[in-house]
Amino acid sequence: MNKNSSNIMALAPNTSNKRETVCIFGTGDFGRALGHKMIHSGYPVVYGSRSPQISNLIPKDAEVLGHAEAAQKAAIIIIAIQRQHYNFLIPLAEVLRGKVLVDISNNLKLNQYPESNAEHLAQLLPGSKVVKAFNTVSAWALQSGTLDASRQVFVCGDDVEAKQMVMNIVRALGLTPLDKGSLLAAQEIENYPLQLFPMWKFPMFLSLGLTAFFFFYCLALDVIYTYIYEKNNFSFFIAITIPNRVCPVMALILLALVYLPGIFAAIIQLYRGTKYRRFPDWLDKWMLCRKQLGLIALAFASLHVVFTLVTPMRAFVSWRTSKGIIAQALNNKTEPLNNTNAWLSDSYLALGILGYFLFVLLGITSLPSVSNNVNWREFRFVQSKLGYLALILCTAHTLVYGGKWFLSPSAYKWYLPNIYILSLIVPCAVLVVKFVLIFPCVDKPLTQIRQGWERNPKYSE
Amino acid sequence: MNKNSSNIMALAPNTSNKRETVCIFGTGDFGRALGHKMIHSGYPVVYGSRSPQISNLIPKDAEVLGHAEAAQKAAIIIIAIQRQHYNFLIPLAEVLRGKVLVDISNNLKLNQYPESNAEHLAQLLPGSKVVKAFNTVSAWALQSGTLDASRQVFVCGDDVEAKQMVMNIVRALGLTPLDKGSLLAAQEIENYPLQLFPMWKFPMFLSLGLTAFFFFYCLALDVIYTYIYEKNNFSFFIAITIPNRVCPVMALILLALVYLPGIFAAIIQLYRGTKYRRFPDWLDKWMLCRKQLGLIALAFASLHVVFTLVTPMRAFVSWRTSKGIIAQALNNKTEPLNNTNAWLSDSYLALGILGYFLFVLLGITSLPSVSNNVNWREFRFVQSKLGYLALILCTAHTLVYGGKWFLSPSAYKWYLPNIYILSLIVPCAVLVVKFVLIFPCVDKPLTQIRQGWERNPKYSE
Amino acid sequence: MNKNSSNIMALAPNTSNKRETVCIFGTGDFGRALGHKMIHSGYPVVYGSRSPQISNLIPKDAEVLGHAEAAQKAAIIIIAIQRQHYNFLIPLAEVLRGKVLVDISNNLKLNQYPESNAEHLAQLLPGSKVVKAFNTVSAWALQSGTLDASRQVFVCGDDVEAKQMVMNIVRALGLTPLDKGSLLAAQEIENYPLQLFPMWKFPMFLSLGLTAFFFFYCLALDVIYTYIYEKNNFSFFIAITIPNRVCPVMALILLALVYLPGIFAAIIQLYRGTKYRRFPDWLDKWMLCRKQLGLIALAFASLHVVFTLVTPMRAFVSWRTSKGIIAQALNNKTEPLNNTNAWLSDSYLALGILGYFLFVLLGITSLPSVSNNVNWREFRFVQSKLGYLALILCTAHTLVYGGKWFLSPSAYKWYLPNIYILSLIVPCAVLVVKFVLIFPCVDKPLTQIRQGWERNPKYSE
Repeated sequence: MNKNSSNIMALAPNTSNKRETVCIFGTGDFGRALGHKMIHSGYPVVYGSRSPQISNLIPKDAEVLGHAEAAQKAAIIIIAIQRQHYNFLIPLAEVLRGKVLVDISNNLKLNQYPESNAEHLAQLLPGSKVVKAFNTVSAWALQSGTLDASRQVFVCGDDVEAKQMVMNIVRALGLTPLDKGSLLAAQEIENYPLQLFPMWKFPMFLSLGLTAFFFFYCLALDVIYTYIYEKNNFSFFIAITIPNRVCPVMALILLALVYLPGIFAAIIQLYRGTKYRRFPDWLDKWMLCRKQLGLIALAFASLHVVFTLVTPMRAFVSWRTSKGIIAQALNNKTEPLNNTNAWLSDSYLALGILGYFLFVLLGITSLPSVSNNVNWREFRFVQSKLGYLALILCTAHTLVYGGKWFLSPSAYKWYLPNIYILSLIVPCAVLVVKFVLIFPCVDKPLTQIRQGWERNPKYSE
Repeated sequence: MNKNSSNIMALAPNTSNKRETVCIFGTGDFGRALGHKMIHSGYPVVYGSRSPQISNLIPKDAEVLGHAEAAQKAAIIIIAIQRQHYNFLIPLAEVLRGKVLVDISNNLKLNQYPESNAEHLAQLLPGSKVVKAFNTVSAWALQSGTLDASRQVFVCGDDVEAKQMVMNIVRALGLTPLDKGSLLAAQEIENYPLQLFPMWKFPMFLSLGLTAFFFFYCLALDVIYTYIYEKNNFSFFIAITIPNRVCPVMALILLALVYLPGIFAAIIQLYRGTKYRRFPDWLDKWMLCRKQLGLIALAFASLHVVFTLVTPMRAFVSWRTSKGIIAQALNNKTEPLNNTNAWLSDSYLALGILGYFLFVLLGITSLPSVSNNVNWREFRFVQSKLGYLALILCTAHTLVYGGKWFLSPSAYKWYLPNIYILSLIVPCAVLVVKFVLIFPCVDKPLTQIRQGWERNPKYSE
Repeated sequence: MNKNSSNIMALAPNTSNKRETVCIFGTGDFGRALGHKMIHSGYPVVYGSRSPQISNLIPKDAEVLGHAEAAQKAAIIIIAIQRQHYNFLIPLAEVLRGKVLVDISNNLKLNQYPESNAEHLAQLLPGSKVVKAFNTVSAWALQSGTLDASRQVFVCGDDVEAKQMVMNIVRALGLTPLDKGSLLAAQEIENYPLQLFPMWKFPMFLSLGLTAFFFFYCLALDVIYTYIYEKNNFSFFIAITIPNRVCPVMALILLALVYLPGIFAAIIQLYRGTKYRRFPDWLDKWMLCRKQLGLIALAFASLHVVFTLVTPMRAFVSWRTSKGIIAQALNNKTEPLNNTNAWLSDSYLALGILGYFLFVLLGITSLPSVSNNVNWREFRFVQSKLGYLALILCTAHTLVYGGKWFLSPSAYKWYLPNIYILSLIVPCAVLVVKFVLIFPCVDKPLTQIRQGWERNPKYSE
């Protein structure tokens, strides 16, 4: 071990409560916020600044010096400067040799530069030990003490001891360090805070589009058609009746769309006779957003459940029920129990309940903490076996409920099919093809292909 | 590296299955439980005891010796002694030099001593390598093998190799070690098992107090008033009707209280013209328990949902419905559908469902595993944007449902306002002020202040 | 530090983007998949193969050499060979000295060999640094890029630097390494992917058996008995009515079975007068699957809730309600509100709602991410105190609902007791014994025993 690292070791917390001095380059917002927080946690802080005299924004107990003098006072230097100004550090290379430089910068766009800011810094100053940290923390949250978001601070760096020192500071500030490995991880860490649910974009737009389409489809058939031809004003259907038609349709279609790419993948592999070629890009992307599609489907299914359960509380439904009962009473007769109706009503409810139950189970296993606790075999079992069972139950639920409309001519207002018929196309197609795929004569070659067998091995040469 | 640490390395598990001897000082309950478990996991255990002869409680396969002889047999010594007796270790300092001492002690109160027990031990024996561990495990759970609580063992210490050795033992016992960094973390680790939901205390008491107040308020107006003036015994309202009035009121008020401190913070910052001064203490504390307030609000909202959904199953409600229908039938007429009523009933249900749906989303994102997987920007989006949307929807739900009572004189029994009117005060105030705050003329200076601009920069000098 | 490890350090990623060459022994499916992925992530890959000429399945950019030459080109060698063929590595021992060998093998059965594959490899080649990794990843998922299951890669090994190098590769491939400690953990890591919910087997079979029994019991009493003696065809009860009788019964019994082993344990300890003897095996196993029993009980309770809430939507129920109302209307009278009925109906609903609410809370705290965030005292409080409260509420719910059937002779069709009576046996027994156990005269000695006191200390001698 060289002299320098033992120097650093001497500065590391060592049963004494005295904390080592930290230097901060840059007096911008984040530099000041971090300084405030560090002073509050017991660290002596010294700022390195181009113009040490204008220092009125800087925390009271901090010293402000020129860059070189400030750097000499500490073993850890936090670089709170933007990447464009990193070049001015090159003349300081000798002073910074052996020091731990903490890169806290973020970019404005994803993958703005070919290499990450931290790697760029390490290339400029090869004699220093660069550690990436703190970039996921907001200056505002740091200062106000109201860290309501994740307290995780991603740390990466090539020097294990330097990383350890930075992680100790992170802990002392009340945050949780998470070691992401060597400096190679810096790119990923810098991209992290710029993302706003990147995996959710396509599923969200698809859902919004489909929802809008089905909403206006129902609006036309249930409200406008009724108003024109039957002179009934059912405009209040907009609040519950139509949403409760759109939600189950969306849930069923999206759930089927979760399993459709797997079907395509199997067909492509069977056709090619090998698994050693990449799928088309659209299929890859589709497969990667299956979890998001499934969760949106679950949201629609949950809304459908609640919308259905409030039915008896609706003024319209009470009115309709009363009307029916009063009509019977005035006719002085009681209709007998229709056994077929009782069977149909009870079985579509039961199928829906069981399907939704499995659906919720799938949702729970996709919680990160749960899926991290199951192994690959268990996850496949739940997501594939139980998932298909949920799809079968939900499709059956829709079939039993909407079946009576298939052949009734009144279901074809303006020659348009009822929404239930539309909703069944994709799920039925998925189930039929899947049914074919599990036949031994199809399943056996597919399994062989997935185990590495190739029909035409010359492909990969 | 000195001779001692290489000695320890030689003892570390090294492809051979033979495990190193562990010494335990102290034959108390935890010492014995740990010894049992270690012997069961294949570690030779030797106890250090003041009186080696009375050893009948100690596990059969363990050796019992005096402290000095026992310490010499092992590289790791577990100190299962109370802090008050640590002083007797000072004469053993020479024997313990270079050894790994595992401090497993807990205190009876939070922050009982100025420094943690482990740091105290390290100060007494500066030549030893102190590691804090095992204090979060219960002796009873350890021995009975029924570790139903968290299997995490927090480990901290200044010597990386010593910590690694202890973490290997932790893993061998079937527990999960969690490295909390240097010995500075010992205070936090020692406080950890003494806490019983510390962040929940204030929100729970507040909720209980408000719930009791609203319960008796409703009891007076709905049961006692009715009994006195209308001679109706509606005492069974206590079971469902009144809880289902109190729950939504509590949910709405608590949800508004989650967003109120943010409003106060913005006003204070606008008034001061700087963000570089701490908020008053009460506001800081309030901001830190927003998550708990929100979760309690969600619990109340969930109860409200279930209480509402069981409505049609209540004997009282069936009776009331039958009465209405029979009256119509006996009068030989059917009331027509009241379109306004249908609109009102459907829209308050739809608003409530959507508000609750967003509320549940907020609850799911506050699960630790989910919030650790979203970045700061995503978390802010969900908790702020979606949270305000939920508040708007829930307030609108209450307004549409309770609106008709505002002007009706029958709602002012004993000159007291109806509970719905009370419940709307805080949420409406929050929404109105928030609406003012997002106007550009107010939002722009606020954003500047939050980015570090100061109206009166002399403040921080 | 010896020469070899400093060599390895030189190869470790060190601010440069150039990645070290990785050697893979074995050209089987997993070897090829891993090679593809590594080349894609920027690693030069060289394969070691017995027959370098037949290489058409191997990724294009990879080099294929004999084992010895391939090994010389890299510091890390991935052993993608089955355990049975490990012996052929012995002649290569000299070439492999100081190299990092990554064991990625899995077995076909749990604990197939006395020691783990990785430990076996380390014994065969004591001069190499064996690291266990990648065995939990599926080759298919790795290649297709659709890693929908856990991205965690468990890594263990005795050499810290070697482990660090492997963990960096894991990260570079887009996976999450999880350090499981020394090579002793290899057995556990190798068993991990072979398990399919091992803890759930007994609870699932028990639940299925009990469910089937109660289903046929209800079928006999509610459908067959009615058909034979009352000539009513209520076959549609199979869809909702009977499931909604079986589910609550199962939920209540399973919840009681969660708390029964704790009762047995207390009685055994009181009888023996010591806690220092292991419980019988069946009790140990029972205690370890309490969480699973509780979660299955929660699933049944949730199904019961939904089945109950859809009641008003059932055709049978609407028909029954209409019949009742029409009968009253035709008789020209309105029945007055039965206050006792209103009380009973409201209180069993309220008890059920509160019990279910606590039950859901228990379920949420058993989510891994939540239970890791509470300490032992908090977990005990929730699972024990709140759990018993949930059991009391659910038992009371059943008593109030089913109470009226206890004494009615019509409840004893075919001299068999009603299912409600059966369901109450276990929970009532648990609650009565628990009530006895919290009496001071019983609780005090029990607490003493659990703190380590022994009535008859000679036992452990």
